[in-house]
Amino acid sequence: MSHRRYDAEALLTWATACLQQAGAAPEIADAVAYYLLEGDLLGHSTHGLIRLLNNADWLAQGKSLNKGQPEVLAERAATALWDAKFLPGPYVMPKAVAKACEMAKQAGSGTIVVKRSQHIAALSAYLTLATEQGLVVSIMCSTPGQQAVAPYGAKQAVFSPNPLAVGVPSTEHPLLVDISLSMTAAGKVRQAKANQQRLPYKALITPDGQWSDDPLTFFQQPGAALAPLGGELLGYKGYGLTLFSEIWTMALSQYGRTQGHQDGDANSVWVQVLDPSAFGSQSQFIEEVDALFAQARAAQPIKPDKPVRIPGQQACLNKQRQLREGVEYSAATLKVMQRCAERYQQPLPEPL
Amino acid sequence: MSHRRYDAEALLTWATACLQQAGAAPEIADAVAYYLLEGDLLGHSTHGLIRLLNNADWLAQGKSLNKGQPEVLAERAATALWDAKFLPGPYVMPKAVAKACEMAKQAGSGTIVVKRSQHIAALSAYLTLATEQGLVVSIMCSTPGQQAVAPYGAKQAVFSPNPLAVGVPSTEHPLLVDISLSMTAAGKVRQAKANQQRLPYKALITPDGQWSDDPLTFFQQPGAALAPLGGELLGYKGYGLTLFSEIWTMALSQYGRTQGHQDGDANSVWVQVLDPSAFGSQSQFIEEVDALFAQARAAQPIKPDKPVRIPGQQACLNKQRQLREGVEYSAATLKVMQRCAERYQQPLPEPL
Repeated sequence: MSHRRYDAEALLTWATACLQQAGAAPEIADAVAYYLLEGDLLGHSTHGLIRLLNNADWLAQGKSLNKGQPEVLAERAATALWDAKFLPGPYVMPKAVAKACEMAKQAGSGTIVVKRSQHIAALSAYLTLATEQGLVVSIMCSTPGQQAVAPYGAKQAVFSPNPLAVGVPSTEHPLLVDISLSMTAAGKVRQAKANQQRLPYKALITPDGQWSDDPLTFFQQPGAALAPLGGELLGYKGYGLTLFSEIWTMALSQYGRTQGHQDGDANSVWVQVLDPSAFGSQSQFIEEVDALFAQARAAQPIKPDKPVRIPGQQACLNKQRQLREGVEYSAATLKVMQRCAERYQQPLPEPL
Repeated sequence: MSHRRYDAEALLTWATACLQQAGAAPEIADAVAYYLLEGDLLGHSTHGLIRLLNNADWLAQGKSLNKGQPEVLAERAATALWDAKFLPGPYVMPKAVAKACEMAKQAGSGTIVVKRSQHIAALSAYLTLATEQGLVVSIMCSTPGQQAVAPYGAKQAVFSPNPLAVGVPSTEHPLLVDISLSMTAAGKVRQAKANQQRLPYKALITPDGQWSDDPLTFFQQPGAALAPLGGELLGYKGYGLTLFSEIWTMALSQYGRTQGHQDGDANSVWVQVLDPSAFGSQSQFIEEVDALFAQARAAQPIKPDKPVRIPGQQACLNKQRQLREGVEYSAATLKVMQRCAERYQQPLPEPL
């Protein structure tokens, strides 16, 4: 049997205990365990509890700050810059989203840029903090210490595979978009390598300028670079989007690849919340979103048995099912979780 | 000879006269002529004076409002909703960017959402209004009356080919990104049809679900749909970005496909300006941007004779060259401009 299922509540208790054992203050352990698990619940298995070991090790080694608060470096009515001082990302992010929501309710929009947040894991895990209040949210992040994505026309990596996430409330379920602006993300290349598979498309450019779907080329020295979204002919679009995300996160926070090149997986983050009721009635906003989703769903599918889906639809179903029936893990992920259990002397819960 | 060159100043005078003849108030004629020409200067030939005839006809037929101001429907410290009442887009947009700049200098960010703007032409023409003040800007727009782009997995169009533009100041030249979130835009399909060429890639999905590069399929009844950026395997990313732009423009302005389905080319628009000095020092922001561009430019190119370029670099060179040597037009564009000259009895200037 290749997958096993675990009770979500038991996983939360276990993960919290591992993090406390690694030295995290209680409120930090709670937040990190909760939002990593949320990544798994939504189906983002590359950004769930598979990263608990990393998060615990960073705390134990002092690469993450184990207590304290982000520092506010600058603030106006609708914007702020925070220095997270390497506090764990899943602890920092809910605070940044909450502050952006508070600003948006006053000023119409609220933008928090955060430098030196330790890795923030799944961006989509933080979106419902805003959508549950009827607000819309966008999040971008970059990794100053990571060079994995090539500019358009280059065979050498400069940028990180930066994600963009968007959350919008609607009647049925929130829209949850969470995509990288490159053809694929480093986590998916690692996953393909672990599973001894090729990538589903040629997303890599080798040092001799060839397009490749072989994940091993990414780990060679020198390694292949990820191509920006759009690929060989339209990669200038993904390149433009990547510059957008690098500038909105790193240049605005004034903490870029020069300052942060040895910061490992730590992130620079952009969070922006908008209050639809600053523009018009909240109920009419929801009607507009519902109507748009209805039109998208009604579009004739290419394959008759594959109707159009709204991003977030499957994630919300994943979460409901896994809360009910248990959270599923592959053998490869369980191996990493087991290492964490042993290192921090907190036995994994029994599978269901 | 297939291209001819014209003095920019003479074109501006000519285009302004055509628009006044079509009924535009002087300040409206000035702005529309200026920003359409700016599109040509930057190299966006599908969104330059080729659209003067349309703009003049809309004014003459009352589809564009020929005088007046956008109405402010709602405002907070950092956000506003405007109703442009079908004023010409090139008249509305500089005002929206200016207001967003003013807000950003106070609140850190300024966001103007505009409904019922007549077609805004080239988004990149408005970016330097912010970057010249040291501010960063993003613009998105959608077209409630246009259904040209399919949701991911569908063969039927629901959305418009929405552009996203981004402007950032730097020492050498501003970053100017201006891309559509679909694999191509309707203007480029029209251009390919006019030039009797195939598209450079299969960007169209026919009503029987086939991928095609034949522009004629787009104009059949029922027509082919444009695919979202990312195409057959990664189109969920362009679909997510398209939903993002449709919601940020149409749902926030509460004027979507239901209300605007008969509004032709009129746009819903999102303009957001950020003040880098709200987050830290302006000079350090510019240093970060310069350093990022230097790293991108230093990346080894796939083709040794094609070094990496920064978006906006070529556009700025185009503008300098065409201001110096004249603005170049193809025979097909000149044919449309000649029709405008005749209809509004303003003879085209002599070529250089």
